[in-house]
Amino acid sequence: MSGQARVVIIGGGFGGLSAARALKSAPVDVTLLDRRNYHLFQPLLYQVATGSLSPGEIAAPLRGVLSRQKNTRVLLGEVQDIDPVSKRVLLADGANFEYDFLIVASGSQSSYYGHDSWRKHAPSLKSVEDATSIRNRIFSAFEMAERIFDPAERRSWLTFVIVGAGATGVELAGAIAEIARQTLRHDFRSIHPEEAQIIVIDEAPRALPPFPEDLAQKAVDALAKLGVQIKTGHIVNEIDESGLTFQGQDGMDRLDAKTIIWAGGVTVSALGKTLAQRTQGETDKSGRIKVGPQLNIAGYPEIYVIGDLALSLGTDGKPLPGVAQVAMQEGTYAAHSIVRKIQGRKELKRFKYFDKGNLAVIGRWAAIADVFGMHLSGRMAWLVWVFIHLMYIVQFQSRVVVFIHWAFQDLTFSRGARLITGNAESEEEMSSRSRGAR
Amino acid sequence: MSGQARVVIIGGGFGGLSAARALKSAPVDVTLLDRRNYHLFQPLLYQVATGSLSPGEIAAPLRGVLSRQKNTRVLLGEVQDIDPVSKRVLLADGANFEYDFLIVASGSQSSYYGHDSWRKHAPSLKSVEDATSIRNRIFSAFEMAERIFDPAERRSWLTFVIVGAGATGVELAGAIAEIARQTLRHDFRSIHPEEAQIIVIDEAPRALPPFPEDLAQKAVDALAKLGVQIKTGHIVNEIDESGLTFQGQDGMDRLDAKTIIWAGGVTVSALGKTLAQRTQGETDKSGRIKVGPQLNIAGYPEIYVIGDLALSLGTDGKPLPGVAQVAMQEGTYAAHSIVRKIQGRKELKRFKYFDKGNLAVIGRWAAIADVFGMHLSGRMAWLVWVFIHLMYIVQFQSRVVVFIHWAFQDLTFSRGARLITGNAESEEEMSSRSRGAR
Repeated sequence: MSGQARVVIIGGGFGGLSAARALKSAPVDVTLLDRRNYHLFQPLLYQVATGSLSPGEIAAPLRGVLSRQKNTRVLLGEVQDIDPVSKRVLLADGANFEYDFLIVASGSQSSYYGHDSWRKHAPSLKSVEDATSIRNRIFSAFEMAERIFDPAERRSWLTFVIVGAGATGVELAGAIAEIARQTLRHDFRSIHPEEAQIIVIDEAPRALPPFPEDLAQKAVDALAKLGVQIKTGHIVNEIDESGLTFQGQDGMDRLDAKTIIWAGGVTVSALGKTLAQRTQGETDKSGRIKVGPQLNIAGYPEIYVIGDLALSLGTDGKPLPGVAQVAMQEGTYAAHSIVRKIQGRKELKRFKYFDKGNLAVIGRWAAIADVFGMHLSGRMAWLVWVFIHLMYIVQFQSRVVVFIHWAFQDLTFSRGARLITGNAESEEEMSSRSRGAR
Repeated sequence: MSGQARVVIIGGGFGGLSAARALKSAPVDVTLLDRRNYHLFQPLLYQVATGSLSPGEIAAPLRGVLSRQKNTRVLLGEVQDIDPVSKRVLLADGANFEYDFLIVASGSQSSYYGHDSWRKHAPSLKSVEDATSIRNRIFSAFEMAERIFDPAERRSWLTFVIVGAGATGVELAGAIAEIARQTLRHDFRSIHPEEAQIIVIDEAPRALPPFPEDLAQKAVDALAKLGVQIKTGHIVNEIDESGLTFQGQDGMDRLDAKTIIWAGGVTVSALGKTLAQRTQGETDKSGRIKVGPQLNIAGYPEIYVIGDLALSLGTDGKPLPGVAQVAMQEGTYAAHSIVRKIQGRKELKRFKYFDKGNLAVIGRWAAIADVFGMHLSGRMAWLVWVFIHLMYIVQFQSRVVVFIHWAFQDLTFSRGARLITGNAESEEEMSSRSRGAR
């Protein structure tokens, strides 16, 4: 140990990685801990789930990204506990690390609002494993339908329901519609993939709540053209292996669907809950830990909480959303704040979020964008989306490849990564979900 | 059914897919059955196992490949049995298909020569799942080593043993050496990845038996420069979770190694064994079914066996090797032979294999090639290798992407697909294999 201040960062997502990078030239020893050996570009995870991109194309190995940053060490490990008194982070395998400053950026996980039995029937999209498993389900559903005689059962294999009409839900729905209407158009002999039903259900009164109403409506219209139905104001009552029941203004209804994807709410990581207990930090209903204007937990100026785990208030007094932009800006702020404290300089002013806008993709050449006060849709919005995402990814490895891939796929609608992979169990499970195939 | 002859093809590998494509314009109904929804370009599987390529880049969805071939239907399903009397193929889910002609191209699987307990400790490389699992092991080993204090244990995490000095074994060893010496060079703080030991063990007297001796020696020399040791004439006695014991001319020896990869022998698929029983076909010791000069099983002129499952003799009377080239030429031959039989034309002359040569890659810009009687090595051989592989892949989807990927990685040594993915079990298993980590 060099005697320099030790900064431990938990999590290599948008927040943690931004913090680590902002500490590049700082006189500190940085340790970045993550369960994964890669940084995941989560906004494109739906493209893995729908076979457009391979996992390797939206992930950058953390060691590679921080390779030349000599004051930083990356360690693969699962953090189990934090002791804010002895200032130690404890790993699941028994190892522990002392810190002078701690940045907790352990993110969020999907929440089924107490209905954990739904997870099995309606997987959510948070990790690479989730994405490949959803990819398996989507493409296997068409395979099963091709082999089923019974019209009702065939229909249920061709019905795709997405719970949640936020950006992820809408992007998934658009991509599945393109799979059915374009990618697979000529691929089957018994079924017509374009007859697939794609339905998005949400209890909110309208889709895409973070977007202005006119843009959200444009997205809904564009999706309707692709054949996607959006049922807002509908509450899901039950999800089982053959479908789901939900309640709308016309009463209860049921949909038989073999493929249901959960794009609903999130809650904080298990570590977040532990941290809140240890520090007696205040939390909101989804478990986010309240932080002060400098992103610290009350009473612990050496602990920073950033990203999806933090309940951080904007200058308008409203909680900041759990998006990559917020996490990245918070990460950089935390890093700068630590450096100032070490150097004994005046503390930074409060964290201020600079909102660059919101983007969502509906399909090929179609997106909506609310950037710098402009409301864009269609082709222009799609170009903005491509540009912004590329600019980010270009920092890492996948640069050229992703771009070529996109350009190429947009010309051809092909989906080279539509592999059904997995182990024998999942295949058995799949066929046990079918009553009989020809 | 249109009343046309029904051709059922089992397996969408090199053999089965070539047969299906050769039947494109034939007056037949083709059904291609495979457990997987994709054709896998197996010669590049080692690049997935070593993080250079993503699975999607070496796989082409079978439906996509055969999409425009209107007389062909692709079905996802596992063939369990074949009844050559009623001419039916039975699937694991109870479905069955009648055939007039059957092409069996169900390939091979890895064989541990009766030591099935070794499989757990020394996985082999046959499927996408195998490749991602080996990728996890390789990259996790460096991660574990970074966190281990004990020098002996650390050493065993940095020791990589490959059993089998054929093309796959040699290519894996070369790629792991490049990972250690180039890709990860700056990525760790406690270990020096370039100190990794990479050892190839084989009982054969020399490496790369299908190659002429001068070329094989060039490959061994090139590997030695990369730090790979090749121990030929050594017989593996035992493989356990902490290493392996083997016998050479100097007696028994032991290597402590946490990562062992099996690139040893193969045996036929389970279906191959069933088919041999049902037809009372003659087999060799690895289970290959003896076929006649027209690739039929004796007594069954409507059943063709091709590829790794077939014991087919060359014009020199020696069995043809289990390589892609043989399978592809056999597939095309079987298709043409069927068409002739249907049309009542004179039967084709016996199958003749046209050997275009052998190729193996050692590393960046280094390969050996025995093509058209020329013995090439180094840069020239590498270019031939790239050219031949690209020409094949270009037929499918991944065209541009793979090329760009290769070009790019050769400039940078980066490996964008070096993700450690998988479920919680495998993570626990990994840490249970470690005695203690810091």
